[in-house]
Amino acid sequence: MNGFELYNTTRLVFGEGKVNQLGELIKPYGENILLVYGGGSIKQTGLYSKVKQQLTSIGATVEELPGIEPNPRLTTVNKGIQICRQKNIQFILAVGGGSVIDAAKAIAAGALYSGDVWDFTIQKATINQALPIGTVLTLAATGSEMNGGSVITNWETKQKRTMGSKLLYPKFSIVDPTLTFTVPRNQTVNGIVDIMSHVFEQYFSQTPSTPLQERFAEGILQTVIENGEKALQNGKDYDSRANLLLAGTYAMNGTLPTGVEADWATHVIEHEVSAIYDLPHGEGLAILFPNWMKHVYKERLEKFVQYSIRVWNVNSLGKTDNEVALEGIEATRNYFTRIGAPATLTEVGIDDSHLERMANEAVQFGAIGSFKKLTKEDVLSILHASL
Amino acid sequence: MNGFELYNTTRLVFGEGKVNQLGELIKPYGENILLVYGGGSIKQTGLYSKVKQQLTSIGATVEELPGIEPNPRLTTVNKGIQICRQKNIQFILAVGGGSVIDAAKAIAAGALYSGDVWDFTIQKATINQALPIGTVLTLAATGSEMNGGSVITNWETKQKRTMGSKLLYPKFSIVDPTLTFTVPRNQTVNGIVDIMSHVFEQYFSQTPSTPLQERFAEGILQTVIENGEKALQNGKDYDSRANLLLAGTYAMNGTLPTGVEADWATHVIEHEVSAIYDLPHGEGLAILFPNWMKHVYKERLEKFVQYSIRVWNVNSLGKTDNEVALEGIEATRNYFTRIGAPATLTEVGIDDSHLERMANEAVQFGAIGSFKKLTKEDVLSILHASL
Repeated sequence: MNGFELYNTTRLVFGEGKVNQLGELIKPYGENILLVYGGGSIKQTGLYSKVKQQLTSIGATVEELPGIEPNPRLTTVNKGIQICRQKNIQFILAVGGGSVIDAAKAIAAGALYSGDVWDFTIQKATINQALPIGTVLTLAATGSEMNGGSVITNWETKQKRTMGSKLLYPKFSIVDPTLTFTVPRNQTVNGIVDIMSHVFEQYFSQTPSTPLQERFAEGILQTVIENGEKALQNGKDYDSRANLLLAGTYAMNGTLPTGVEADWATHVIEHEVSAIYDLPHGEGLAILFPNWMKHVYKERLEKFVQYSIRVWNVNSLGKTDNEVALEGIEATRNYFTRIGAPATLTEVGIDDSHLERMANEAVQFGAIGSFKKLTKEDVLSILHASL
Repeated sequence: MNGFELYNTTRLVFGEGKVNQLGELIKPYGENILLVYGGGSIKQTGLYSKVKQQLTSIGATVEELPGIEPNPRLTTVNKGIQICRQKNIQFILAVGGGSVIDAAKAIAAGALYSGDVWDFTIQKATINQALPIGTVLTLAATGSEMNGGSVITNWETKQKRTMGSKLLYPKFSIVDPTLTFTVPRNQTVNGIVDIMSHVFEQYFSQTPSTPLQERFAEGILQTVIENGEKALQNGKDYDSRANLLLAGTYAMNGTLPTGVEADWATHVIEHEVSAIYDLPHGEGLAILFPNWMKHVYKERLEKFVQYSIRVWNVNSLGKTDNEVALEGIEATRNYFTRIGAPATLTEVGIDDSHLERMANEAVQFGAIGSFKKLTKEDVLSILHASL
């Protein structure tokens, strides 16, 4: 196990009806609120009016930034930054999924920075201050509700990049499983793939002797596998929605990478794909991850054997380690297919025209990943296998 | 799953040599420091001088309160409170195991309260303010390094009681596995039992549909079972000491009780035993827990079947659920015995003279526990089975 620091300052408020605490949770931070949300589904579900009621109850002055995109764009973030400056915003409230929260974080960092917010994604500047943010989560997926990371897309340059800071942890996040009852099937699927992929990135590590972190990761995967299918069968099943949400939060709240070197190469590759094609993140990950696994599993075979046996209950009797490992990878692909996620770039309309460019962008700062360091040739090989 | 709030404000700094960050971690809180420690083993190991060096480096003025007892006493806590008031203490640093940290917490709460600090344990007062504390942990056991709870013994009245507050979470806790290399065998054993018992209290719950919390609990137990024996074979094995420490922290840092109704009856009973006999907490728990299990397992048989299979790898083929459950309980007792923990009150010199008094005290506020609500008769039955 490596040394590490575990320090998560987000207050997670979980359960049915917890939106009723929103006013009281925001109150300490000020009265000028920027409300950030997405395509307007929160108006159809009635969540929007509940949130407005809460804000009214504390006498808040509310500005709104609707229309955050599934891959949130720099132009939209800049709109939010303008509002913050013009209206003296004191607190940003994100109501939505990971994209809305990520946009809110970038706005929070950009509002108090005199330069271009994109600087934070290219290490041209570090985040030294940020407006406080809070969230009401409506989708089990990114885990952005309990960490300090944000992913933003520059649509003009076709670049998708991350920024992060301890200052971007939400002050609170309200997670109410009933708010996810109306999440459409494809978004539920993408959320499931996203959560599992986050775990993969931190589970397939070369760091030795981390049994607890591995058990936690396996526990999250097993919970998602089981409850994901249940939530797809019945979207209004409280328990499976709740279990998915909790798993999604724990997959990205700092629990899994304590003392572990994580990989993240597949995320880097996926970002290059979805930056060009505006593909939902979960679809890109579903296509790529089993191919990454096949490309790297021999680098630490026993970890993949453990994965197959503990997560997928592969019976290892009379099989070689290689066979057991491949069976687990196959089970991963089969699960993704069973829940309706795509398996190839071709079926989402992506051909080989930009693979070279994606590979170049992916390794622009050098080889990526840590389980196996991937060169441009490795990335190209994974992309070709994904066609 | 029930609703819950997850909010842990402790910064955990984990790894070899992290004591070197102590000065910088304390600095924001002030210069008048109360250093609290136990029987002086930290002087033999050299930790004391490292800590003093760090405090000198930031120009701190240091008062000392050595001699915290294994079951920390109200009289000692009151001594610390006096020092805080007389010397205008701004920060309390606990260097030691759970008892030292618990004493520091009680001092932190008492120093800013005009009444008797014992009031906090009997719900006569709630903690509204407290001095900030930090810890350097030297023992894997109570988890006090990352929560807001404290257990104090009033030796005059033979009462052992708890207090707790969000305000008592340590601002930081330094956990360096090498600092536990010199922990004697019996204390390592008691720590193992303590950690496992904390998990039991939160794992054996009647709350339905909490698969993730259960997997986490099982993961902690498996990690402790495996690494506990390794640490006993070789006390200087970094990885097993590290894994034990991380498991101990997670067993009590708020991860397991999210959305789950915990039990805690066995802890209440043990507190009554050790308040009269000053028995190490871990020994009392090792004696009592398997007997609690036998007394209650039929209240939710399937949970004990799951425990046996997942934690102890009990082969259920051709066995009744009852047999499988009992095999897991037996495995628990066998493990405790194998690592050298006591199995009966008799072997630690306790006879039946005070069982009635213990049972009366245990249920003084009503039936205890939640997996099965225990009346005085239940408690007596468990105590008699433990003789």
